[in-house]
Amino acid sequence: MTEHAAAQKRSRGGPDLYGASTLRRHLIDAFRTVRNETERRAAPLSPEDQLIQSMPDASPAKWHRAHTTWFFEQFLLGPHCAGYTPFHPDYAFLFNSYYVTAGPRHTRAERGHITRPGTGEVTAYRRHVDAAMMAFLSDADESTLARLAPLMDVGLNHEQQHQELMLTDILHAFAQNPTCPAYDKTWTPPPPAVANGDGWVQLNEGIHNIGFGGDGFHFDNEKPVHRALVGPVGIARDLVTNRDWLAFIDDGGYRTATLWLMDGFARATGEGWEAPGHWRNRDGTWHIMTLGGLRPVDPDAPVSHVSYYEADAFARWAGKHLPTEMEWEVAARGGHLHDAFGIAWQWTRSAYAPYPGYRPVDGTLGEYNGKFMVNQYVLRGSSLATPEGHSRLTYRNFFYPHHRWQFSGLRLADYGD
Amino acid sequence: MTEHAAAQKRSRGGPDLYGASTLRRHLIDAFRTVRNETERRAAPLSPEDQLIQSMPDASPAKWHRAHTTWFFEQFLLGPHCAGYTPFHPDYAFLFNSYYVTAGPRHTRAERGHITRPGTGEVTAYRRHVDAAMMAFLSDADESTLARLAPLMDVGLNHEQQHQELMLTDILHAFAQNPTCPAYDKTWTPPPPAVANGDGWVQLNEGIHNIGFGGDGFHFDNEKPVHRALVGPVGIARDLVTNRDWLAFIDDGGYRTATLWLMDGFARATGEGWEAPGHWRNRDGTWHIMTLGGLRPVDPDAPVSHVSYYEADAFARWAGKHLPTEMEWEVAARGGHLHDAFGIAWQWTRSAYAPYPGYRPVDGTLGEYNGKFMVNQYVLRGSSLATPEGHSRLTYRNFFYPHHRWQFSGLRLADYGD
Amino acid sequence: MTEHAAAQKRSRGGPDLYGASTLRRHLIDAFRTVRNETERRAAPLSPEDQLIQSMPDASPAKWHRAHTTWFFEQFLLGPHCAGYTPFHPDYAFLFNSYYVTAGPRHTRAERGHITRPGTGEVTAYRRHVDAAMMAFLSDADESTLARLAPLMDVGLNHEQQHQELMLTDILHAFAQNPTCPAYDKTWTPPPPAVANGDGWVQLNEGIHNIGFGGDGFHFDNEKPVHRALVGPVGIARDLVTNRDWLAFIDDGGYRTATLWLMDGFARATGEGWEAPGHWRNRDGTWHIMTLGGLRPVDPDAPVSHVSYYEADAFARWAGKHLPTEMEWEVAARGGHLHDAFGIAWQWTRSAYAPYPGYRPVDGTLGEYNGKFMVNQYVLRGSSLATPEGHSRLTYRNFFYPHHRWQFSGLRLADYGD
Amino acid sequence: MTEHAAAQKRSRGGPDLYGASTLRRHLIDAFRTVRNETERRAAPLSPEDQLIQSMPDASPAKWHRAHTTWFFEQFLLGPHCAGYTPFHPDYAFLFNSYYVTAGPRHTRAERGHITRPGTGEVTAYRRHVDAAMMAFLSDADESTLARLAPLMDVGLNHEQQHQELMLTDILHAFAQNPTCPAYDKTWTPPPPAVANGDGWVQLNEGIHNIGFGGDGFHFDNEKPVHRALVGPVGIARDLVTNRDWLAFIDDGGYRTATLWLMDGFARATGEGWEAPGHWRNRDGTWHIMTLGGLRPVDPDAPVSHVSYYEADAFARWAGKHLPTEMEWEVAARGGHLHDAFGIAWQWTRSAYAPYPGYRPVDGTLGEYNGKFMVNQYVLRGSSLATPEGHSRLTYRNFFYPHHRWQFSGLRLADYGD
Repeated sequence: MTEHAAAQKRSRGGPDLYGASTLRRHLIDAFRTVRNETERRAAPLSPEDQLIQSMPDASPAKWHRAHTTWFFEQFLLGPHCAGYTPFHPDYAFLFNSYYVTAGPRHTRAERGHITRPGTGEVTAYRRHVDAAMMAFLSDADESTLARLAPLMDVGLNHEQQHQELMLTDILHAFAQNPTCPAYDKTWTPPPPAVANGDGWVQLNEGIHNIGFGGDGFHFDNEKPVHRALVGPVGIARDLVTNRDWLAFIDDGGYRTATLWLMDGFARATGEGWEAPGHWRNRDGTWHIMTLGGLRPVDPDAPVSHVSYYEADAFARWAGKHLPTEMEWEVAARGGHLHDAFGIAWQWTRSAYAPYPGYRPVDGTLGEYNGKFMVNQYVLRGSSLATPEGHSRLTYRNFFYPHHRWQFSGLRLADYGD
Repeated sequence: MTEHAAAQKRSRGGPDLYGASTLRRHLIDAFRTVRNETERRAAPLSPEDQLIQSMPDASPAKWHRAHTTWFFEQFLLGPHCAGYTPFHPDYAFLFNSYYVTAGPRHTRAERGHITRPGTGEVTAYRRHVDAAMMAFLSDADESTLARLAPLMDVGLNHEQQHQELMLTDILHAFAQNPTCPAYDKTWTPPPPAVANGDGWVQLNEGIHNIGFGGDGFHFDNEKPVHRALVGPVGIARDLVTNRDWLAFIDDGGYRTATLWLMDGFARATGEGWEAPGHWRNRDGTWHIMTLGGLRPVDPDAPVSHVSYYEADAFARWAGKHLPTEMEWEVAARGGHLHDAFGIAWQWTRSAYAPYPGYRPVDGTLGEYNGKFMVNQYVLRGSSLATPEGHSRLTYRNFFYPHHRWQFSGLRLADYGD
Repeated sequence: MTEHAAAQKRSRGGPDLYGASTLRRHLIDAFRTVRNETERRAAPLSPEDQLIQSMPDASPAKWHRAHTTWFFEQFLLGPHCAGYTPFHPDYAFLFNSYYVTAGPRHTRAERGHITRPGTGEVTAYRRHVDAAMMAFLSDADESTLARLAPLMDVGLNHEQQHQELMLTDILHAFAQNPTCPAYDKTWTPPPPAVANGDGWVQLNEGIHNIGFGGDGFHFDNEKPVHRALVGPVGIARDLVTNRDWLAFIDDGGYRTATLWLMDGFARATGEGWEAPGHWRNRDGTWHIMTLGGLRPVDPDAPVSHVSYYEADAFARWAGKHLPTEMEWEVAARGGHLHDAFGIAWQWTRSAYAPYPGYRPVDGTLGEYNGKFMVNQYVLRGSSLATPEGHSRLTYRNFFYPHHRWQFSGLRLADYGD
Repeated sequence: MTEHAAAQKRSRGGPDLYGASTLRRHLIDAFRTVRNETERRAAPLSPEDQLIQSMPDASPAKWHRAHTTWFFEQFLLGPHCAGYTPFHPDYAFLFNSYYVTAGPRHTRAERGHITRPGTGEVTAYRRHVDAAMMAFLSDADESTLARLAPLMDVGLNHEQQHQELMLTDILHAFAQNPTCPAYDKTWTPPPPAVANGDGWVQLNEGIHNIGFGGDGFHFDNEKPVHRALVGPVGIARDLVTNRDWLAFIDDGGYRTATLWLMDGFARATGEGWEAPGHWRNRDGTWHIMTLGGLRPVDPDAPVSHVSYYEADAFARWAGKHLPTEMEWEVAARGGHLHDAFGIAWQWTRSAYAPYPGYRPVDGTLGEYNGKFMVNQYVLRGSSLATPEGHSRLTYRNFFYPHHRWQFSGLRLADYGD
């Protein structure tokens, strides 16, 4: 049973399932599984690879490894584990990300300047906190465990989010390197669903519950579940592919102002976009920088590394639209969508905003999601970099409309216009 | 009968109302009324005042006067008036705003650099086009008039939008001048509704038609009318006042990070915001730069010149929210709102986006609204600078969330959270 | 007798020449002559023309007119004319340029934002100060006049410097206008000396006195006269012409990195330089924006509007150098140079630095020159925009090496390498 | 006999000293000595430390190690060693610095983004080139050695320059780290000369030969030797100390605009300077970031990490000046100066410019010095980071006037004004 399945089970279960040994065993297993996955992902990276911050939006792998560790120190061990001593007095300052209520913190854009503590010290930091956590999870009484289990869930899901960012950030860094290094030369992309010509799923008008309505883990931005009017609309079952995108390029898509939002065209021309992020033209052939290094673009694969601006321009070129996040959720809940998860996040045309009645959680973790609810757009699904067990039908990812270093693609919507 | 009432009547009327002499008379009257209003607003401005562009978001008054004139030359006289000769071959380049399909244009941020043609030449340009338009409207056959009436409506509404901007832009320019010049020393603000303690209007859940469903003039972004689920929600009948805002300031609102969206707080601290735009602290007392010059802040007046970021922070501080544009529209249509029009535009929490099934109009005017539908937020109502006859229940104004040189305020919403 | 000749005479004369009526008459004449010249230069400019500041390095004509007036108010009338009332309490703030010891001042880059006071008020300001000055000069006793004569000289020479800037600044502004307005359609350039093939003047090694050693007016940066070793060097008698420059362009001069200083090439490529400032290619023919409007480049005319970077690259391309300012001064004092004055300032390779033993004058006027002695290069001679009577063999003009909106050219030097 | 002494001897010697075995032995020894010193300096740095580029002016230690190696590959092995194969085809692109005639190169500001090749690969690169060089130096015939000896000198002196930069650059990087890491905790500063109150050396007016006139190694910018008039001037025998500087700080030196060049004050206020670079105020006591970590400022030590702007302001505050580079050279040649070498480079007031008759060397190495001769100021002497054997009386170092991450200090001059 995977960590995810366990979490789901736990979330559905009643108090009897939270029997002492079961909960303790689950928490220990989940903690070990997630923490190991972080280290597994960092393993191919040299100390230099772990330092680089190739743009302010990205963070060094070493920082991801330390920040996720600080999270447990800050929110679990510090307040709840009597006698715990922080590994190092400077680390709270160095590895806090954006929690102003947790104290001052190092400037985000300069994370790549912290050569010391080094990779080895961060590894020691992780071991120190892991050992303290394991002792704590083994020794705490049952009521404490039950009370802290939701916080554990946040810590582990938080770390999973950073696992994804570790890959997207190092890919961006490698893509800036003229020698195009590979994260893993043997890496292969996940196979997309076979497009079988079933085209579009039609959603008739109806009132649906949107958002997370169960008991299991979820982020506060998925709540409250609320009623929304959805449809009529058609949603494409398949993701837009590189073949589609090459047709857009060949048709002058990147040079045709009338296809673009004005801010998008200003960005595209200002930065000289001619193709998706990480694409490189080598002797007339489009290649793409992947985790396996630079490879020819596969026409059958779903397009990735496109910004909202590009996705929107493509949709206009195609005579279609992007779906709203509600439409996506209804269609996905109905099981109608191919590759909804596991290849590329899918841009929606929904600005990232609070659901009606949204309340951030109390305390410092209230900064987790709420303060980002402006100027960004929602992506749904998950990507090839998303850790196992971290996807949900109601999951709301969000990025700025010019961002394209994520594994971000799209599927189309049709309103009959 | 005002121009607005006439337009409304026309929009509701059948073909019989469009009888030859009625339509012609209406068009001539409307044209003369709107064009005169522009000149009336420019009258207090010296040639220097008409040149200044105090920031890239603003435009010189002279440019507003010329650009609105170019609009008639470009879209009416050029294509539809045989034998019309443009006033000057350079003006299409100088006074096109953002219509890429209408040809190349002068850089927006450098509009304040065009000292020549001077104010006098722009006056001559206006007279030239006015005369040509009057001749055209007098001489065209009825079917031509009927066919072009919608385009006339766009041109006149377009000019009205620039009438409002002329005032907000010159107010911004004067506010940068350390001598605080007055546009009109005798200017007095419109009196707000008397707050009578009736507080909140409650909207129960219901499906409503949103958007413009009539026949009269409207912009394409108000269409198509579509069904939306609105409520339950409470909407404040009154606008937030300066008294409320002073309490927010006194409570440290501008310095409390947790009240703000992250992008908003970065902007507020980066630009040193301590109060709404155009406010100046003189010897411990807050003053505000108005069209009548610098005056003490009136606590009873609705707050104005606040950005979306500030409005959102204020709402959070008050334990409330901003309404969505749909909620605003439903409440306003029901006649429940005080000062919905005529004092300050009201920020909503709705990102500016196309309605489902939205289609820009064909041709160059398709650039009018659609390409701005990203990164901006919708404001509803109208302001003290909005020309008579230019407001509508379904009107969607939009600005970036950091903008605060408009007459922009807010009213609150309550979701019971 | 021109104002300059009078000043020279005065400077050479003994106390007897400063007899009451002579000095008084001279000061009144000089004041009237210089002040009138400013107004003569401003006369072709509309109020809008007088407002524009087309880049931070330039200033509006209206500002030049007011700032030179403020100078007399600040340094003459205020301290020395009992009972003088400043024209307006805000003007000291608005029209101080960079004298920190004279109090706070308006931001330089925003001078173009001051639409009010308008052109008419500045004219009234000039008249007010002129009248006060004339009364003061008429009524002051002789000893006061004798004591203040040097300060009068500074004020008048200061105004003459701004007379030159008024022309270079408005030319820059007009050059940004796509319609290429003319300051004066009848303007003709000064005729250059006939190049008669006498080529180079050779200066043997010798110790020379450099700097101003007489009694007349001079700026503090021309002092003290000091001994310098000059030569051996050859100095071109003629200025580099547009014909020479076209050969440089045709030879790829602007694209050949090895001809340039690194900072210069970065600037040239960053700003897309392909020819001197104000040159425009119209259908394959080089034109130049002049005070008379856009005209074809005259191959026989000396090149103008080149930066130090370009001048240096040209010299390297020609296998030559720029002279030092000492070499220029020695050659010019010997009368060997054609067009040393009156067409284009000539870049030297001397960084602008204090002469050994340099002391700024006491008080606020000590900021006049000294604080600019870094990062700039010296130009010698004068230009077609320099007012009559304002040139001197020892005059040191200075600009940053990327500046090219002045009438700036060059002559070559040859060290035999 | 040190490498430097050997080089000096060689430079003075006739052909008989260049006997086969002597020259060969010297070149091999010098090569080994210099190359080892680079590695000795890099030894305390972790792989992460070697990657960081903390500002565009600095470079990563790994890059310094690779670039100096590329120099031998590019200029020695490639053209002169038959059959030599470059270590890696990408390295010429990655590790060329600014030689445009040597081909395209990686963007300077992004040197810190090259995580791969890693530190280990750069070590392998160095070993590969070292082995090839040793074989080449052992096997080449004598005439080849004699012909290439000057080029060897350039390569070794070039590497020594980068040895100094490795220390200044990593010190800057560590100074950005809030944990203040030490390069070498046991590091101690060189002891300054004992100030013995002998004050000032007076130089009378005289003509002196300036520049390098011998036969040994020198850079092209030290040539040609030429005659210059120097004096009368007094030059301080001692460097300005931290005690002096603290008095300047305490007297409000950093806040007094009239002490500063205008560009300098703009920089100082824009960047918030309150003390020299790398100084940190901890609980009211000034500390300085050194190679040994953060330590209290020693009042007796010469001040370091000051920019030209600060040095100039200090001199004005002290009623003195900075000397010219010629004055420095004459005084130093006379043996009058304490601590001329080995503690801190000394700013002069000489803009970096070509000596009269200067010619860059032919070919790519002509880019070594000449193209930087604008906008920078000359420093003389050497610093505690300068490698043994790399200083000369005629050595001209140069940096921009705002630079202060070098070990840069000053001594004063007195012109009797």
